[in-house]
This record gives sequence, structure tokens and C-alpha cells, in this order.
Amino acid sequence: MQQLVAGIDIGGTNTYFGLVNRNGKILLTGSVRTTDFPEPKELVSAVSKKIQILVADCQMKTAEYKLAGVGIGAPNGNYFNGSIEFAPNLKWKGVVPLAEYFKAQLNVPAVLTNDANAAALGEMYFGGAKGMKDFIFITLGTGLGSGIVVNGQMVYGHDGFAGELGHTIIIQHGRQCGCGRKGCLEQYCSASGIVKTYFEILKSENPDAMENINRSLVDSKYIYDKAMGGDEDAFYAFNYTGELLGFALANSVAYTSPEAIFLFGGLAQAGELLFNPVILSFEKNLLHNYKNKVKVLPSSLPENDAAILGAASLIWNELKIE
Amino acid sequence: MQQLVAGIDIGGTNTYFGLVNRNGKILLTGSVRTTDFPEPKELVSAVSKKIQILVADCQMKTAEYKLAGVGIGAPNGNYFNGSIEFAPNLKWKGVVPLAEYFKAQLNVPAVLTNDANAAALGEMYFGGAKGMKDFIFITLGTGLGSGIVVNGQMVYGHDGFAGELGHTIIIQHGRQCGCGRKGCLEQYCSASGIVKTYFEILKSENPDAMENINRSLVDSKYIYDKAMGGDEDAFYAFNYTGELLGFALANSVAYTSPEAIFLFGGLAQAGELLFNPVILSFEKNLLHNYKNKVKVLPSSLPENDAAILGAASLIWNELKIE
Repeated sequence: MQQLVAGIDIGGTNTYFGLVNRNGKILLTGSVRTTDFPEPKELVSAVSKKIQILVADCQMKTAEYKLAGVGIGAPNGNYFNGSIEFAPNLKWKGVVPLAEYFKAQLNVPAVLTNDANAAALGEMYFGGAKGMKDFIFITLGTGLGSGIVVNGQMVYGHDGFAGELGHTIIIQHGRQCGCGRKGCLEQYCSASGIVKTYFEILKSENPDAMENINRSLVDSKYIYDKAMGGDEDAFYAFNYTGELLGFALANSVAYTSPEAIFLFGGLAQAGELLFNPVILSFEKNLLHNYKNKVKVLPSSLPENDAAILGAASLIWNELKIE
Repeated sequence: MQQLVAGIDIGGTNTYFGLVNRNGKILLTGSVRTTDFPEPKELVSAVSKKIQILVADCQMKTAEYKLAGVGIGAPNGNYFNGSIEFAPNLKWKGVVPLAEYFKAQLNVPAVLTNDANAAALGEMYFGGAKGMKDFIFITLGTGLGSGIVVNGQMVYGHDGFAGELGHTIIIQHGRQCGCGRKGCLEQYCSASGIVKTYFEILKSENPDAMENINRSLVDSKYIYDKAMGGDEDAFYAFNYTGELLGFALANSVAYTSPEAIFLFGGLAQAGELLFNPVILSFEKNLLHNYKNKVKVLPSSLPENDAAILGAASLIWNELKIE
């Protein structure tokens, strides 16, 4: 019998899923539009059917394939009860027991956690954190997500919501955050944060500069391209972002003293443009005990597969199958 | 056979120790002056002899008593190798394998960690954290120490030095810290921090005020007494300290999402004077997910016994004897 798991990545717009073997190989994938399903049970039903078809496809090749479980990464996912709780980016309101729904549909164990935790497990099982027992995983997307692993275990905390580093306040009375508070790390160190920084720089140099810019064209990739083309403002935006991130990461080391910190997501793909200022500021701000001990590394998960691999790791981790 | 352990608390000035049973009862205690022993092996030898005498005393009452192990709490203690590493408050330089020395002298298992971690374990075994799997323990002494428990386990981190919340930078370019950096939490939220705050307040009101004050008389107890007597400056010093501590603790919740945070040490004994502003600021600064979920509590360990109980918990934890 060859066991497979389904890794499911629930996003605000799309839901991706794939069948993954125990070596982290994705055999087949599929997707639906999350927004097509006003009721979560309808999405579960549709995705489950597609997963069953994928499993049948695999069984055409080898009859021995069997679905052993389902892992789900979702915004505001709570590991303890398998529910999505009050996710601002989804249409589904309140507490949605998604793992239970999948379990009922597919009759296999189903576990759920937030997307950053899932990706952190992916890094531990199939990426650069293989063999590490203590590390921090940071996703630099629209926001800043994080997963913390201590002693080989994901840190869920008392309520299942540990690891919200994006919502540590890094600058008191700083930029307004969607969470209602001010100065959260993700307002500075994320794809949307660097855009805000870039606009601030442009404005500070020339208050009228903004009039000549089509704001909707400016994203982190735009700033990256500008910086690589020699634009000093764009370069400085990366520098400022990296400095703040390095500072925040240095503080985070004082909590769990990790072996490494992994950066994942679009912004992390900027390479040295981001990593150079991050590491410089990180080492400068570290307590002497920790200096030159903690690696800051790009995630080695492939950008497109990470979410599925992470969700698959979650269930492999649960099944404890070597 | 009734097993006992020795809990040893190595301080810069004095070393206290006691025999502790598995219920957390301290049967007998003793002490030596740490500073009397320029060589750590000499201290180990002297303390071991005294411990053997205490065990013999116990055996006079019940022949069945037996020393099962030694737990040591020490500044800059590294759990992984049982060593004190480069402790600025001790005369012993470099790396001192103290657990090994005790093991050799007493022929029982010996484990060591830093004093705040040991006290956190004491809270978990014999104090208010009984039955909790996720909590943070803060000691407010001359500095600010901390121990983090996740999933029922002490967080040691990759190198044994996790949980240095006193050295997270809370105010960039803030007060000079002994660690060489600026703005560390312990420069504000500790017995010495509140004295600095109090002096700053006095100075800001009247630059000459300091001339009439005997600085050596002012400690956190002095400020407490003043505040309780209606002195507004002293009251404000507690308020400012509490506000900053509440802010820092709110950030720390985003890491491990604990069930409770315990405050221990002289400053924590100020009661409502400290706890009121701490809790107000804590709840104000918490991410909505965490609001009204996390208790901020005074440690329930008796001030004088905590270090010995904590060190004893460390070895009981290791012996895994119920």
C-alpha cells in the first residue's frame, strides 16, 4: 500500500490542492475558486470530489495508492479545533469547522492550521529546515505570517493562535494596521509594507511626485525592478524594510533562540537586495550571546508548491508515518 | 525509599540550597558565600559536603531518605551542557561545567539552567502554573529574566539560551544597557529600571531636585513606599513601568500565545500599583485574537524559596518521577 495525503491551501481567492507522497513529491494538483462557494460545505464537497478523482487517477497507475489523510492550510486556521475562525479575507463568517467537514466527506483524518504554520512544517519536512528542531519561518506576502518550531514541534500556544509576529508592534504609534492597532511589523515588512515605504520616500523628496505615479502599478516587484535598475529611492525602500525586519528578527531570537530563520514569499525572492540589509541589521541588534549563531536563510520551498507541501506536511506529521 | 533532591541557587553573592521532596516541601536548607570561592570546584566541594550533612540529618529521622539528584539555577546557565557560560555577575570566567562537578562530587544526576528558567519550572511544578502547558514567567529583579514554557516543555532553544526577554529592545536608541545595546526591556521594567525612571521624572520636573536626594537610598521599595504615601512622581514611575511592561508582554503573546504570564520578584510584590497599569496596557496592546484570554498573575512561589524550589523542579522534571 502506498499512502498519499492531500494538501489543501485555502486562499481568499483560490483554493489549491495536490496529492503528495511521503517524500514530498506532488503527484497531481487541482484548484477551485474559493469565492465561487458562499457556503464552506459546498467548497468541501467540490474539492473532495476533485481529490477523489485525482486519487482514482493515481490508482490507474498503481492500484496500491490510498488516501491516508488531508492537511489544510488556511487563514486564521486553528489547529486545535480544525476551524477557520473569523478570517477577514474569506467570505465565510464566524467559526468554520473545515477539518471536520473534510473528514466527513473523505472519511480520512483531516487537520488544519494557519497557512504560515503549514508552510513552516513544509520547510521542516521537505525544505531547508530538515533536521532542525528550533527555527522560525516568516512569510513575506501581502502581510507577514510566521510559524515557530520549538524542540521539533510547531508552537500552537494555548489557543492555537501562536506565531503572529506580523502583529507585534515594532513602532509605537506607527502605521495604522488592519487589526486596529498601530505600528505592526507587517505594516513595514511585507509586500504591501514596502510599497508604503516607497511612497513615503517619494513624497518626502517631492510632495508632488505622487501625482505622476500610477499607484496601482506599484507593487514590491515594481520596486525591486526599479532598485535593480539603479533607482536610489527603491533601493532605500528595500534597505529600510530590511533594517526593520533584521531588528524585529533579532528581538525574536531572544524568545526561542532558533538555529535559523527562513524568509519565504515574494519579497524574500528579492535576494541580496533584501537579505543584505536584513542580516546586517539582524547581527547588529542581536544580544551578544546569539551573535554569529543564527542563520537567516531564504526558504528552499518552491514558491508555487509551498502551500500544498506545507498542508501535506501537517497531515504527514499527524500520521507519524516515516 | 523516599527520594529527595537538592535545589541549588547560585547567586553573585550567595549560594542557597535545600533538600526538597517530590511535593515541593523544603526539608532543610543551607548557604555559602559564592564570593568566598575563587575556584568553582571549591564551591562545589563545600556545597556538596553541606548537602551530604543535610541528607544525613534527614536520614536520622527516616533512614529511607536518599538523594536522587541535584538541580542548579545559575546566571547564564546553559541547560544543554550543564555549564555557566561567561556570567558577568560571577567571578568565575569562561565556561564552568558546574553540573559535571556536582555529579562527580555527589554521584547523582545533576542538571543546570538559568535562574529564571528554574523558577518557571518551580511555578509549573509547585506554583500557579500547575497544569498549564503554555505560560511565560518573568522575574523582575535587578534585571528582567524570563522562562518560556511551550507545550509543557521549557524552551531552551538551539543553544540553551532561549527566553531572554529582558534583552528584547523595547525602545530603539533608548537607555544604555549593560549588554552593550540600547533600549533593552530590563532597562525600564526591573527594580533598577524603575529607579532610573523615577530619577528621570524628578529631574524633568526640577533639574536641581537630584541634589537633595541621597541616590543610594532610592530603590524600588523606596519608590513603592513613596507611591503608597501619595507621592505622584513615584506613582507615575510605577505607571510608566507598568505601561511599558504591559506593552512588551502584549507583543510576547504573539510568539507563544500563553495561557498566563506570571510576574515574580520584588517589583511584582508592589501588587496593584504595578499590576493595574500592566494589565491595562497589556489588554490595550493585545491583538484582538488574544484579548481577554491571557491572565497576568503574580507568581505564587514564596519569594525566598522560589529559587531553591525552581532548581529542585528542574531535577524532578529530569528524573520524571511522579
